[in-house]
Amino acid sequence: MARNTQVTADHNAPLVTQILAQFVAKHPSRGWSDAVDHEAHRTFLNWLGCAVGASGHEAADAALAAIAMLQPAQQASVLGRKTQVDMASAALVNGITSHTFDFDDTHLKTIIHPAGPVASAVLALAQHQKLSGRDIIDALVIGIDVACRVGNAMYPDHYDRGWHITGSTGTLGAAAACARLLKLDVQKTAMALGIAASQPVGMREQFGTMTKPFHPGGAARAGLMSALMASQGFTASPKALEAPRGMMQTVSLKNDWSEITGELGQRFEISFNSYKPFACGIVIHPSIDACAQLKAKGITPEQVERLELRVHSLVLELTGKKEPADGLQAKFSVYHGCASGLTFGRAAEEEFSDHIVTREDMVALRRKVVATVDDSIDEASADVTAILKDGSKVHVFVEHAIGSLQNPMTDAMLEAKFHGLSDNVLGKAQVDELLKACWGLGNSANVDALIKLATPV
Amino acid sequence: MARNTQVTADHNAPLVTQILAQFVAKHPSRGWSDAVDHEAHRTFLNWLGCAVGASGHEAADAALAAIAMLQPAQQASVLGRKTQVDMASAALVNGITSHTFDFDDTHLKTIIHPAGPVASAVLALAQHQKLSGRDIIDALVIGIDVACRVGNAMYPDHYDRGWHITGSTGTLGAAAACARLLKLDVQKTAMALGIAASQPVGMREQFGTMTKPFHPGGAARAGLMSALMASQGFTASPKALEAPRGMMQTVSLKNDWSEITGELGQRFEISFNSYKPFACGIVIHPSIDACAQLKAKGITPEQVERLELRVHSLVLELTGKKEPADGLQAKFSVYHGCASGLTFGRAAEEEFSDHIVTREDMVALRRKVVATVDDSIDEASADVTAILKDGSKVHVFVEHAIGSLQNPMTDAMLEAKFHGLSDNVLGKAQVDELLKACWGLGNSANVDALIKLATPV
Repeated sequence: MARNTQVTADHNAPLVTQILAQFVAKHPSRGWSDAVDHEAHRTFLNWLGCAVGASGHEAADAALAAIAMLQPAQQASVLGRKTQVDMASAALVNGITSHTFDFDDTHLKTIIHPAGPVASAVLALAQHQKLSGRDIIDALVIGIDVACRVGNAMYPDHYDRGWHITGSTGTLGAAAACARLLKLDVQKTAMALGIAASQPVGMREQFGTMTKPFHPGGAARAGLMSALMASQGFTASPKALEAPRGMMQTVSLKNDWSEITGELGQRFEISFNSYKPFACGIVIHPSIDACAQLKAKGITPEQVERLELRVHSLVLELTGKKEPADGLQAKFSVYHGCASGLTFGRAAEEEFSDHIVTREDMVALRRKVVATVDDSIDEASADVTAILKDGSKVHVFVEHAIGSLQNPMTDAMLEAKFHGLSDNVLGKAQVDELLKACWGLGNSANVDALIKLATPV
Repeated sequence: MARNTQVTADHNAPLVTQILAQFVAKHPSRGWSDAVDHEAHRTFLNWLGCAVGASGHEAADAALAAIAMLQPAQQASVLGRKTQVDMASAALVNGITSHTFDFDDTHLKTIIHPAGPVASAVLALAQHQKLSGRDIIDALVIGIDVACRVGNAMYPDHYDRGWHITGSTGTLGAAAACARLLKLDVQKTAMALGIAASQPVGMREQFGTMTKPFHPGGAARAGLMSALMASQGFTASPKALEAPRGMMQTVSLKNDWSEITGELGQRFEISFNSYKPFACGIVIHPSIDACAQLKAKGITPEQVERLELRVHSLVLELTGKKEPADGLQAKFSVYHGCASGLTFGRAAEEEFSDHIVTREDMVALRRKVVATVDDSIDEASADVTAILKDGSKVHVFVEHAIGSLQNPMTDAMLEAKFHGLSDNVLGKAQVDELLKACWGLGNSANVDALIKLATPV
C-alpha cells in the first residue's frame, strides 16, 4: 500500500506556525492601506447581512435547540434574533447562519468563505469582552489573512481530496483573530494556532445539508475556544502546522510554504475577497447580470418574444435545469436566473423562494429563454440578445459579471443586498442605522450599538 | 500534481453510515456475551481511574479556566474535582484527564484509546439526563464498536499520514454512543454520525503536548454535540462516512469497508481492548514485567550485582535513555523501567515522578542494567538475568507482558492500578466504594452514587 505522507513528508518546512504567530501578535494596528481597511468593513457588512438574513432558518433553530440543552450563559448575541448564548455558541450559530444561504463572501483563489469562521468568532468575543471596533477590524484582517494564506498553500490538493476548505482553514483564522483580540503574546498565539490545527472542520460530501453551514460555525467555535485555552496556558506543538505529522501535511499533499511567508504583512488576502450579488452558483451570475442590464435599458418581460442566451458549455452542464419545480432547483437553473434578472433586476434569496419560482409569469418567461452552447465564450461571461415582439433586438455582452474581482459590487450594491436580506427581519429604518454602524465600525468604542441594531425590536 | 482522491475514489462503497446507524439504534440492550459485558465494565473502570488520577493536572486546570470564561451551567461533574460544568465541557475535560497520563486503554489493532472519547461523552450525558447504568454500558459497547470498526477500516494508512486515530474516530464513537443514549431513531442516528464525520480531531505532531489528551476530549465534546444537534433536527449527508468526498475517503487512502460490516452485532471490538499496567510506552512493558517477577521471587536491589537485559533493537531505539533526568525522560528509559520493576514491583505514574526518578538508589540501580540487542527476541518479549553478588543467577523470560491481550490484567490488577491513581485524590476507603460502584454499574438505576464517590469530599 502506498504510504503517501512518508513519500512526501517535508522535514524542512519553514517554521510557519511561529512566523504566523509573530505576525498575528505583532503586526501594527491598521498596518495596511485605507483600501484594505475599507475592504474589511465591506467583508464585515456583507457577512452580517447574510447572518441576519438567515437567522430564522431551521438550521439555526435546530442548532440553538441543541445549545439550549447546555443551559448557556447569556454572553453574546445571535444576530437577527433576540437570543443570547455563551460566546462560543454565538460564534457557532452566527457562523452557521452567515453561510446558510450560500450568499457570503468568497476568496476566489481558494473558494474559501473567510468571514464565516473569522467574523463570527471575533464579534462574539468582542461583544462579551467589550472590545473596540478597531480591535475587531484588525482581528478580521489578520484572521482572514491566516486562513487564506494557509488555504493558498494547500489549494487545490486539499480541496480536491474532499475538504471543505472554509472550515478546515477557518479554525486557524478564527484562532488567530481571537488570539489577536485577547492580545496574546507570540508564544501563546502559537499555542492557539496549534490547538486549532488539530481541529479542521468539514468535508464536501456535506454540501446540500445543514452541516455545510455548520462548517464555518464549527470552525469559529473551535478557533475561539483554542484562543481561550491558549490564554489559560494550554499547550500545543509549536510546529503544529508545518511538521511532517502536523496539520497541513496530514490534510494536503501540496504545501507551498511561500504562500504563507511571501509578502506577509504587506499583501493582505482580504483584498481579494469578493461578494455575491446573486444567491446562486457563480456560473449563472453573468447571465443574470446581462438580463438585469436589459431591464435597466427599459426592456420588460411583456415586450420579449425570445431571449437568446449564448454561454460556455459548463454553464448548461451545471445549471441547465429548464423547468425548476422549487427554489432549490431554481438555484441550478440559468433559465430562472435570466427570468429573475429581467423581471426584478436582481436574484437575491427572495427570488429563489418557491413562491416566486412557481409564479406563472416566471414559468412563461423561462420558456422564452433559448440557450446555446458557445465555448468561445468564457465561463465567466454571457451573451444575451432579447428579440422583442416588435421585431427589434437588444444585445448585451457581459465579460465579467458584477461581483467578480474585475467588476466588484459597489458599496451601494452591498447596502442594497443587505436590505434585501435584513429588512424583513429588522425593518428598513433599523437596517439603515445598522449599515451606518457597520461602515463606522473601525471608529466605534465597542459594538453595543451595532449589536442592538442587529437585534429585532 | 497527483490528485490522490481522484485516483482512489471509491463510488461503490456500502452504505456504512446507514448500516452503523441501524446497528446503533436497533441492536438489543445487552445483546452480547457476559464476557463482553464484563469487558465494558473493565474498560469503564480503567478509564475512570485514569481520569481521577490526572484530575489535578495543569492541563485540566488550563482547560477548566478557559471553560469558566463561558460561565457554564452546572450539569455534569469533572471527575476527581468538585467542579461541575455543562455536559459538553465535562465530556471535554474528562476526556483530557483520562488520556493525560497515557495510561488509558488501547485497542491494539488500531492503537485507538477508545474509552477517552466514548466514556467521557457517555457519562456526562447520562449524569445530566439521569440515565441508567445499563444504558451507559450499552452505549459504551456500541460507541467503542463504531470507533474501532472505522479505525480498523482505515488503519494503518490513516494513522501513517498523521492522524491521531483516537480523536479522529473517537468523534464518531462518541456520537454513536450519545445517539444511543438519547434513543434517536435510525434516521437521526445517521445524522448524528454525519455531523460528527465533519469533525475528526487530532494530529500526531501534538504528541508530547497538552493537545494530545485534548484529542479524546475534543472528540467526546464534538460527538456529544453532534448527537444533541441531530436530536433537534440538524441534518447531514446520509453518506457522510463513505462517499467519495465523505470523511473516510478524505482522511485515508485505505478503506476496507468489510471491517465495518463484517460480523457487525456479533463480534464486539471492546473484546480486544487492553489496559496498561505501566505508565509508559508499551515497548518497555515486558522488561518491567520481568523485573517485577524477580522482585516477586524475593530478589532485592541490594542483592543485585548486574541486570542483564536482552531485547529487540526497537526497544533501545525508542527507550534507550540510560540516565533520565526527570520523570518525562524516564518514560523513554527501559533502564528506569527495570529499576522500577525490581524496586517497587510496579511502574505506575508515581514511579515516573521526578522525585523517584532522581533518587540515588534508582540512579545506582539503573547503572547496573546492561542491555543487549537480540533481534531473535520479539518486540513484545524480554529476557532478564539477575547476576547476584553471591555469584548466583536468576533468569526470567517474559513472552507476553502483563496487560497484553495474551496475558491480560486481572480484575484485581485493575483495582490495584485504580487505587494507585485515585487514593491520593479520593482516599482509599472512598475508592473501595467507587470500585464497587463501577463493577455494579450495569445494574444501577443512575450514576448519582458513582459520581458522588468520584468527587473529593
